[in-house]
Amino acid sequence: MTVTRFAAKSLCLFSEAALRAAGADGPSAQDATRAMLHGSLHGIDSHGFRLLPHYVRAIREGRVNGQPRLRFRRTRPGSGIVDADDGHGARGTYLAATHAVELARVSGAAAVAVVRSSHFGPAGAYALEIARAGLFGLVMCNSDAFVRLHDGAERFHGTNPIAAAAPAPGYPWLFDMATSAIPFNRVKLAQSLKQALPEGTASDAEGRDTTDPAGVAMLAPLGREQGYKGAGLAGLAEVLSAVMTGMNLSPEILPMQGPDWSTPRRMGAFVLALDPAAFAGAQAFLDGMGRYLALLRGSRPVEGGRVLAPGDREWEEAARRQREGVPLDPSTIAAMEEIAAAASIPMPTAVTGNP
Amino acid sequence: MTVTRFAAKSLCLFSEAALRAAGADGPSAQDATRAMLHGSLHGIDSHGFRLLPHYVRAIREGRVNGQPRLRFRRTRPGSGIVDADDGHGARGTYLAATHAVELARVSGAAAVAVVRSSHFGPAGAYALEIARAGLFGLVMCNSDAFVRLHDGAERFHGTNPIAAAAPAPGYPWLFDMATSAIPFNRVKLAQSLKQALPEGTASDAEGRDTTDPAGVAMLAPLGREQGYKGAGLAGLAEVLSAVMTGMNLSPEILPMQGPDWSTPRRMGAFVLALDPAAFAGAQAFLDGMGRYLALLRGSRPVEGGRVLAPGDREWEEAARRQREGVPLDPSTIAAMEEIAAAASIPMPTAVTGNP
Repeated sequence: MTVTRFAAKSLCLFSEAALRAAGADGPSAQDATRAMLHGSLHGIDSHGFRLLPHYVRAIREGRVNGQPRLRFRRTRPGSGIVDADDGHGARGTYLAATHAVELARVSGAAAVAVVRSSHFGPAGAYALEIARAGLFGLVMCNSDAFVRLHDGAERFHGTNPIAAAAPAPGYPWLFDMATSAIPFNRVKLAQSLKQALPEGTASDAEGRDTTDPAGVAMLAPLGREQGYKGAGLAGLAEVLSAVMTGMNLSPEILPMQGPDWSTPRRMGAFVLALDPAAFAGAQAFLDGMGRYLALLRGSRPVEGGRVLAPGDREWEEAARRQREGVPLDPSTIAAMEEIAAAASIPMPTAVTGNP
Repeated sequence: MTVTRFAAKSLCLFSEAALRAAGADGPSAQDATRAMLHGSLHGIDSHGFRLLPHYVRAIREGRVNGQPRLRFRRTRPGSGIVDADDGHGARGTYLAATHAVELARVSGAAAVAVVRSSHFGPAGAYALEIARAGLFGLVMCNSDAFVRLHDGAERFHGTNPIAAAAPAPGYPWLFDMATSAIPFNRVKLAQSLKQALPEGTASDAEGRDTTDPAGVAMLAPLGREQGYKGAGLAGLAEVLSAVMTGMNLSPEILPMQGPDWSTPRRMGAFVLALDPAAFAGAQAFLDGMGRYLALLRGSRPVEGGRVLAPGDREWEEAARRQREGVPLDPSTIAAMEEIAAAASIPMPTAVTGNP
């Protein structure tokens, strides 16, 4: 697949302008852009600027409120609720992360539920925000049904991500996973390359395993024979982000791809912060993370393999993309050109001379 | 394998007497027994009364302090530390669950770190305790190195469990998983039955996949090609139960099976409680769990399959074992007979006339 690279900064300017033109206020455009930048920099392209055309349409047609009036209510010393007023998921969730940090500094542990939210992009962006403040962060979300249950034959959970981040010497420990066996993007890539999928990762319309990407009707939960683990982890994200918040369950969420683009999707999200100072101590925690990561990175690799800590590959990729630019696929670029033409804003200029 | 069944009540009496005879005080004997009963009733036999001979030896030889003076210190409104004084893991962790519930009722969210603890058995027992109090519970622990990293070739993490439980109509939602692909018991079973293991679940001494149970040197993390997810989840448990508590990392924990049975293992554990009343509301949460579980149990199964919610199988098994008795394997019974003879306590009487 041909990719063209763009400087991160110029993509951010374009993204903010496009979202503003669609009807977003400044903070919404900034937060959505910041979350997409996280995805695009760290190599999680499914949750990077590829989402911009989607968000532009969701705001333009009313699914997402571009000018939300966010409200935060502290319910107890260590808990609160952000009402995102049907705004962009990044807006409500960054705010929840900020409040979770503030509450946890006083309360040791703090959880913030986000209600009336929407698609929030990469869960790791918000967990990382908490780690950057020196605390441990845990973030979960559910999404529209796309993954069968263990022994199931219909779409039930979303790809329900679980992300965690912790401060560490150097850069933070950052773990961000979907609870499905593979991402749907992997299926699309296999379709385009006419490659078989790994066994036990996707199913046909009857819930039977298929390795043919053209026959995929749903994804499998992580774990294959132990798929009850992947399904249970999806359930953990579901219970915290939908039941604990009183929002839509995955099977109740309107499909991300429409046809309805005007009805808010009533999605929840869940954000937890823990202050290491209230447990082992801030410095002891940092030292412990350093010891853990040194042991982990020094653990003997299998022949031809490489042992990495969660986030290592992402930080390497982020450094590369800061230097060389963010690659975008042709269909995303085409959609951006349409947006640029319709809103009369200049396209970001491609980086030249890079590999 | 021949199994003999025993009434749960008679196993509990035997267990408490055996632990007392080894040097445990009443509360330690009761808590350890209660945790083993959870495993044995719910069909998690690896974490049931099979552990009793192990605990008896650990207390007798000094690894576990049978008469700990537990201390709890509230560090913030929503956080605290239980110092388990090298006592049995169940003693410190049940106490942490009790305090987490108490703090979370005031603070909305509360986390309790357990320090100077030891092997605690089934993680689900403590999460369930929180759910029974009407709150959402999350419990994690690390253990001695037994699972390689993704692309790793040596034992690094323990089987590091993650357990969560939530109140629900009927019986609680209860999710309890090891972050390894399979439990080591599965390897031992395959050895005894001379069966092959599923691919990608265990490795030889070079970290290469093996399906031959005789050649297993370590377990694989959950997820096969996406084993970085299983390893990352093990890391999540590691960061919260060892780094956040300042206790030993998995590679630093003395091996469970000795040869050193006298040195405390300085293990940590992590307990989180969330009060639904501080988020969606207690009744709305219960209603939401009911709606979620009804949708889940009604989700179409694959042909010949059955869709279950986390815990469904375990609650069915618990009801059966309450009626028919708890099955124990011959080697556990033989070890119990030795304990009975040495301590002059009567063996539990086997249930007769059951299938």
